[in-house]
Amino acid sequence: MPEKKKRFIAIIGSGQCSAPEAELAEAVGRQLARRGATLVCGGLGGVMEAACKGASSEGGVTIGILPGDNYHAANPYVQIPIVTGIGYARNLAVVKSAQAVIAIGGSYGTLSEISHALQSGILVIGLNTWSLSRNDQPDNSIIPAQNPTEAVNKALSLTAHQ
Amino acid sequence: MPEKKKRFIAIIGSGQCSAPEAELAEAVGRQLARRGATLVCGGLGGVMEAACKGASSEGGVTIGILPGDNYHAANPYVQIPIVTGIGYARNLAVVKSAQAVIAIGGSYGTLSEISHALQSGILVIGLNTWSLSRNDQPDNSIIPAQNPTEAVNKALSLTAHQ
Amino acid sequence: MPEKKKRFIAIIGSGQCSAPEAELAEAVGRQLARRGATLVCGGLGGVMEAACKGASSEGGVTIGILPGDNYHAANPYVQIPIVTGIGYARNLAVVKSAQAVIAIGGSYGTLSEISHALQSGILVIGLNTWSLSRNDQPDNSIIPAQNPTEAVNKALSLTAHQ
Amino acid sequence: MPEKKKRFIAIIGSGQCSAPEAELAEAVGRQLARRGATLVCGGLGGVMEAACKGASSEGGVTIGILPGDNYHAANPYVQIPIVTGIGYARNLAVVKSAQAVIAIGGSYGTLSEISHALQSGILVIGLNTWSLSRNDQPDNSIIPAQNPTEAVNKALSLTAHQ
Repeated sequence: MPEKKKRFIAIIGSGQCSAPEAELAEAVGRQLARRGATLVCGGLGGVMEAACKGASSEGGVTIGILPGDNYHAANPYVQIPIVTGIGYARNLAVVKSAQAVIAIGGSYGTLSEISHALQSGILVIGLNTWSLSRNDQPDNSIIPAQNPTEAVNKALSLTAHQ
Repeated sequence: MPEKKKRFIAIIGSGQCSAPEAELAEAVGRQLARRGATLVCGGLGGVMEAACKGASSEGGVTIGILPGDNYHAANPYVQIPIVTGIGYARNLAVVKSAQAVIAIGGSYGTLSEISHALQSGILVIGLNTWSLSRNDQPDNSIIPAQNPTEAVNKALSLTAHQ
Repeated sequence: MPEKKKRFIAIIGSGQCSAPEAELAEAVGRQLARRGATLVCGGLGGVMEAACKGASSEGGVTIGILPGDNYHAANPYVQIPIVTGIGYARNLAVVKSAQAVIAIGGSYGTLSEISHALQSGILVIGLNTWSLSRNDQPDNSIIPAQNPTEAVNKALSLTAHQ
Repeated sequence: MPEKKKRFIAIIGSGQCSAPEAELAEAVGRQLARRGATLVCGGLGGVMEAACKGASSEGGVTIGILPGDNYHAANPYVQIPIVTGIGYARNLAVVKSAQAVIAIGGSYGTLSEISHALQSGILVIGLNTWSLSRNDQPDNSIIPAQNPTEAVNKALSLTAHQ
């Protein structure tokens, strides 16, 4: 009987975030862990730390793909620190290592991750994050979610076939 | 007497583009060259090729920062091919090597370059390109231009102090 | 009581290797896992696959930091595939993510990893691998080991303080 | 009548170097420029700066592919600064952007560039630099040169067909 395929889901957002964003991120992290998904993130503070904290609290695995040159920059809930040494070019690795990306809030770094994901054909689910239009036409590639449960449901159900 | 500082301006956009976008890109390339700026781009086809063609026709210098492993992928108007071997992580180098970025149309790769530029504090000028909003609030960081002349004027005048 | 610090040890070598090299790699992987270390590698075949196979057989955790654009290139024993999309620039991430590196045989890619490790102050232990001299003076930075047990002992004991 | 193909030759070596190494690098830079080649380097001090100084003094073009986040780190003789933002992963771009590499002295960073070049099938010529052996067998892939003239002759003649 084949093992059920493991899900890697990225949570992206700012290294400094508001309290409501941290709550969202922690809830998303908890739910991903409960449902057996592995959390991928950029390994730093803010949304990334809150997400790792949530996942860890439920016994989930947390991967932090770091921009700098050593693992000390990782937040304390990262279990698997990946030290890339390539700066913000690591944003590409954060999204490519996941089957789906959940964006929570976020600034331009998050937007670069959303862009790299969409360019790579990786599903992006958004919670209070960027919205896009091109030549004044809305681009609806970011799938909206109203709350953590909906975000996690969409991330897992829409990638179930992969 | 100090030499006048050289301007490096990036033109970004899709590797495949419409005829009107190619015209815009070629005109921007021509005007940058006439005004002594060096053109930086991703080195491939579409908007990048049209921009290099325009700059070359006016005797300008063209730099193409390529994603792949050899220079043969460069369009024929690239004089300085940089072969990075790092895939789309090279998008970061395209914008960081410029004092300002002019975005023409573009898809998600272009959006990642816009994001990396804004994250790095590099001016972005847009011609028929993406517009952004965050949490339903418009983000006006991309400076709009109506035509090639306005785009080049803004790119050069707003970075004159750097 | 503080948790014992987790060791991340990289095993590096060619994507295609001889049977004796594969045996060495598998033995090193097994012993690292038995001693609680996490295995980091480049995620592909040859030495990397043999090392992951050995570690997996003892219940160890295996991380594969891949050069390409999707996780399908990972060998079947990689549990945590990291998809970098940056080609051989990922060699830097392989060594920087470890406290020590064990090199087994290897060609120029392996030599680049040895170099990046030594440049970053990361311990390198060699099993039948490169030796270096500079201006005709031997450089003894690669710590030799005669067999897998010695390699693992040195990797773990010499980084115990970190 | 086809234009004669332009040569891009990389000079690699330490960011801090001895006076004799700087003399070698400056002489190599001068001769490359006189013979119409474009100089590629890592853009920093030491061997890189001396090489750029030599090339500039003969009217040559100098490209500096920088590891960091802005062009201010470039030595004053770099005419085309490429700002990669990817740290020492830029070593890959330095060698891949050239048809041949001339290594002068150098430490582990230089050795990583030599390795990446040999892995990519790019010719490496050595002046007082590393020598390699693998499993106690000498590896003669680095082509030795006794002086700057011989290094430049070999770099240009052996890549003339490319």
